[in-house]
Amino acid sequence: MKFIPHLIDGKAIAQQTHEESRLAVAGLRSRGLVPGLAVVLVGADPASQAYVRSKDRVCLELGMHSVKRELPATTSQAELLAIVEQLNNDPAIHGILVQSPPPAQIDERAVIRAIDPRKDVDGFHPINVAKLALGESDGFVPCTPLGCQRLLIASGIETAGANVVILGRSMIVGKPLALLLMNKGIGGDATVTVAHSRTRNLPEVCRSADILIAAIGRAEFVRGEFVREGAVVIDVGINRVEDPASAKGYKLVGDVAFDEVAGKCRPITPVPGGLGR
Amino acid sequence: MKFIPHLIDGKAIAQQTHEESRLAVAGLRSRGLVPGLAVVLVGADPASQAYVRSKDRVCLELGMHSVKRELPATTSQAELLAIVEQLNNDPAIHGILVQSPPPAQIDERAVIRAIDPRKDVDGFHPINVAKLALGESDGFVPCTPLGCQRLLIASGIETAGANVVILGRSMIVGKPLALLLMNKGIGGDATVTVAHSRTRNLPEVCRSADILIAAIGRAEFVRGEFVREGAVVIDVGINRVEDPASAKGYKLVGDVAFDEVAGKCRPITPVPGGLGR
Repeated sequence: MKFIPHLIDGKAIAQQTHEESRLAVAGLRSRGLVPGLAVVLVGADPASQAYVRSKDRVCLELGMHSVKRELPATTSQAELLAIVEQLNNDPAIHGILVQSPPPAQIDERAVIRAIDPRKDVDGFHPINVAKLALGESDGFVPCTPLGCQRLLIASGIETAGANVVILGRSMIVGKPLALLLMNKGIGGDATVTVAHSRTRNLPEVCRSADILIAAIGRAEFVRGEFVREGAVVIDVGINRVEDPASAKGYKLVGDVAFDEVAGKCRPITPVPGGLGR
Repeated sequence: MKFIPHLIDGKAIAQQTHEESRLAVAGLRSRGLVPGLAVVLVGADPASQAYVRSKDRVCLELGMHSVKRELPATTSQAELLAIVEQLNNDPAIHGILVQSPPPAQIDERAVIRAIDPRKDVDGFHPINVAKLALGESDGFVPCTPLGCQRLLIASGIETAGANVVILGRSMIVGKPLALLLMNKGIGGDATVTVAHSRTRNLPEVCRSADILIAAIGRAEFVRGEFVREGAVVIDVGINRVEDPASAKGYKLVGDVAFDEVAGKCRPITPVPGGLGR
């Protein structure tokens, strides 16, 4: 049996999310509250600069207050902590993002711990990590796992009781996503397996999935034999591979070998255009 | 094929652990440091009193300083928090346990958060929950998951690459155990699945396990058909069931139907005498 791949349209879901955010911001503004996001970038990495610009642009589109702090690559730990402290105390700022990774002289863990947990919109502060692990819903959840869950909910894919296999056990995606999907409630209640580089019989483990989520960071690692017919496949990976045919010399591919897998599965997210961007 | 059940002797492993602790305590004492544990009990629940007494007794056996604080059931939240604060500041005390569950007038979450994370030997404080989730090894891990992992290591059961199915997603056992066994390192690197009441095809999911850990709190819930031949079975459950033949009128059974399962698996922990007591 050959499935006609049904692409999950990440862009459309993002647009819908933006629309909801715009309404929420308008509601807050009508009560005199302008939500503010501060994004801090240390150094001039072009990819990070592009991310920061796009966050700034979306904030303004949504009617939010946006602060962009671009600091030289030589910024010291103490200088960065002082800026975080200033943002913690700034009543116009409700969310703080420090773009990762910082230069080598900065201890990223210390910076994360310095952010007020109530402004830690990345959800990396231990207080927010613990809230997720404890199933408490009043903390911040890292954006990629939350986006994954939102994608599933928005696509009408039932997670309750489903076998979900997550490929990858990173602190940014794999582990928080596992906690999110096994917690009780909408978009949760799944039977979650976390598989990784040490997993034996990886294709077999992946074939047991009703929903397979690839977040292993290896280009086209998930082949056709990893996917059971009719499964849902979410591809979190964004990998650069050489492509002489492209003007840029590279192209972006996911963790899933799309052409092999797309014919076997129910909805699948393409890369690009799915989860990442 | 019928396996001869090989019982994992939890008591022998506990004894070995006590021996190691005794040596560690002696080493600290020789440097002038006497480790101290404080156990706080509010109310007079007989099971809790027995637990507290046994913790006190083991501390003394190991050469530790032990403080037992038994408070009336009418103790207020403020009174309990004041005692926790006093123990936080007591240099003779290095670990604090507040026996669970407290009476209804006490907010257990607030009490857990009041304990200095460096003295939170139960590992329930958000800072320690986050350390476990983040794979940082310098926090405290809840005792039951840690005991489970120790049992596996002491029994020479390799977790790296093994399919581990954990039945139950509680914050006391299931979730921390999943994080512990999927983290990198000795006793970790497993492919972990967390199954629970909402899991579809539960017997099938359990049969995929090389190591099946039952922590669902339902007497003899795991039947023969849940277990693949040659699997390792760890039974974390302790359930009271009526037993007119016993003088007490009840007996203790695990989450595993021992007689059905024992013939199919490699090592298995009996109840009692395995993990719990």
